[in-house]
Amino acid sequence: MLVPTLTIVGVGLIGGSIGLAAQKRGVARRVIGFGRDPGKLAAACKLGAITESADDLATAVRAADLVVFCTPVDRIIDQVHDAAPYAKPAAIFTDAGSTKRAIVRAAPPGVAFVGGHPLAGSEKKGAEHAHADLFVDRWTVLTPTEQTLIPALEAVSVFWKALGAHIRTMTPEDHDQALACTSHLPHLVASALAGILPVEWRDLTATGFRDMTRLAAGAPEVWTPIFQHNRQAVLDALARLDERLAAFRRALTDNDAATMDQFLAQAKKVRDALGS
Amino acid sequence: MLVPTLTIVGVGLIGGSIGLAAQKRGVARRVIGFGRDPGKLAAACKLGAITESADDLATAVRAADLVVFCTPVDRIIDQVHDAAPYAKPAAIFTDAGSTKRAIVRAAPPGVAFVGGHPLAGSEKKGAEHAHADLFVDRWTVLTPTEQTLIPALEAVSVFWKALGAHIRTMTPEDHDQALACTSHLPHLVASALAGILPVEWRDLTATGFRDMTRLAAGAPEVWTPIFQHNRQAVLDALARLDERLAAFRRALTDNDAATMDQFLAQAKKVRDALGS
Repeated sequence: MLVPTLTIVGVGLIGGSIGLAAQKRGVARRVIGFGRDPGKLAAACKLGAITESADDLATAVRAADLVVFCTPVDRIIDQVHDAAPYAKPAAIFTDAGSTKRAIVRAAPPGVAFVGGHPLAGSEKKGAEHAHADLFVDRWTVLTPTEQTLIPALEAVSVFWKALGAHIRTMTPEDHDQALACTSHLPHLVASALAGILPVEWRDLTATGFRDMTRLAAGAPEVWTPIFQHNRQAVLDALARLDERLAAFRRALTDNDAATMDQFLAQAKKVRDALGS
Repeated sequence: MLVPTLTIVGVGLIGGSIGLAAQKRGVARRVIGFGRDPGKLAAACKLGAITESADDLATAVRAADLVVFCTPVDRIIDQVHDAAPYAKPAAIFTDAGSTKRAIVRAAPPGVAFVGGHPLAGSEKKGAEHAHADLFVDRWTVLTPTEQTLIPALEAVSVFWKALGAHIRTMTPEDHDQALACTSHLPHLVASALAGILPVEWRDLTATGFRDMTRLAAGAPEVWTPIFQHNRQAVLDALARLDERLAAFRRALTDNDAATMDQFLAQAKKVRDALGS
C-alpha cells in the first residue's frame, strides 16, 4: 500500500477522481475527504470517492501520509498553512491547482510540499462526474523548487504514476507561462466568444461554436483566482494572441489570400500534430 | 420519390452525407456525383454516397431534378454559371456553402437557385467521413431573396426536412452576419490559438486546448475563400471580440476580481443555455 492514509481536501471532479483512482489501483486504503459542504462530502462517500469524511481540516490531516489539496487555487495556500500544524512529521502535501508559482512559493517552510497539476479535467464540476481513469495517460506536472525535498518529490511522482499519469517536472514559473498559453488564455477566449453571441443567433451555432465555448461553462469562482494568480503570464499570452489576430485582420483587410492561407495552414499543421 | 434524380457537385463530407441521407430516406433514387478527382468519385460510389458519377458538369446536371453544390464557396458561383445552360427547365439549384451573400447575389437570372447552408459538418474532410444522419435535428438555413421562386424555395425546404433537418430562412446578408460570429470568427480564433502554441508546450495541452483548436484542422483552401466572401462581417465580429478581450484585459490589469467574475459568469450563462 503506497499511501496507507490519503487525505483529499476538496472532493470535486479532480479530488473525487483521485479518490476513486487511488482505491481502484490499490494505492490507498483509507481515503479521508474534507470540504466545506457536508452534503457534498456525504455524496462523495456514497459514490465511493472517499472512504470517510472529516468534520474539520485538523482531523482530516492528522492521520494522513499524503494530503492532496484540490480546492480552487485561492484557497490552497491558506489551507496548506492551516493544515501544516496537524500533520504527521513524515506527511507529504501536494496539490492539483491550475497555477503553481503563487502556491508553491507561499508554502510554509516546515512542510514537505510538492506543487502538482494534473492536466485533466473538464468544465464539469463535482464528485458525481469523477472517474477512476481520469488521469490515465495524461500528464501531471510537478513543480519542484530548490526548497523541495527530493524524497517528497519522488513519493508524489510515484503516487501519480500509480494513478496512471505521466510525469513532467518544471519550475512553477515555467508551468505558469505554459499553462497561460495552453489553458488560461483558451478559457478567456471561450468566455469572450460566448459573451459576444447575441441571443437571437444561438440557434445558428453548430459543433464548432460549441467546442470553442465549452470551457466557458467553467465556474467563475474557480477561474477568477486562476487569472489573478497568473496575471502577467495571461496578459503576455493575450498580447501574443492579439498580435496574431491583428496579422490576420491585416491580411483580411487587404484581401491577401496567400497570407490567410499561410496563417491557416500553419495552424492546421500544429493542430494536426496534437492529434484528436 | 421526392427527387427522382439528385446531382451532387462536390462529394466530400457534406455532399457525401447528402447522398447517403437522400438514399437512406427514400428521397432520391439516382444520385449523380461530380467532382474534380475521379479517384474520390469512385470511392464515393463504393461507399454508396452516390449511385453513379459523371465525367463532366454538363452530364452531371442534364438529368437532374435538384442539383446541390457542395464545393468550396469560391467555386460554387462559377459552377452554377457553368451548369445552368445544361439543366432541365424545371431543375432547381441549391448549395451548401458557408457564405451566402456573394453566392446568392451572383446566381444567374435564368436558374431557380435557392441559397442554403446546413449547419452541420466537421473539421474532417471527404466522403469517407460522411454519414446519413449528419443533418438530423440540425438547422439548415435557406436564404431566399426577392428573386427566389417560391416553389423552388418550398421544394428545397421539403428536401432538407426529408433529410431530417430543421429549416430557418433569413436573408443572405443576415446569414453572413450571424455566421461570422458563430462560425467564421471561431475558426479564425482556433487558428490563432493553434498558431501561437510553441512546440515545446504541445505536451501541456489538455482537452480544453484541443476543443479550442479543433476547427484549425479545417482545410485552408476551404476557409480562405469563406473569409474572403464574408470579409466585412468577419472584421466586425473580430472587432467585437477585440473589445471584449480588452475589457477583460483591463480587469486583469487592475486585478478587478468582481469584473472578471461578472465576465465569466455572463459567458457561463450563455454557454449553459446552448447545452452540450
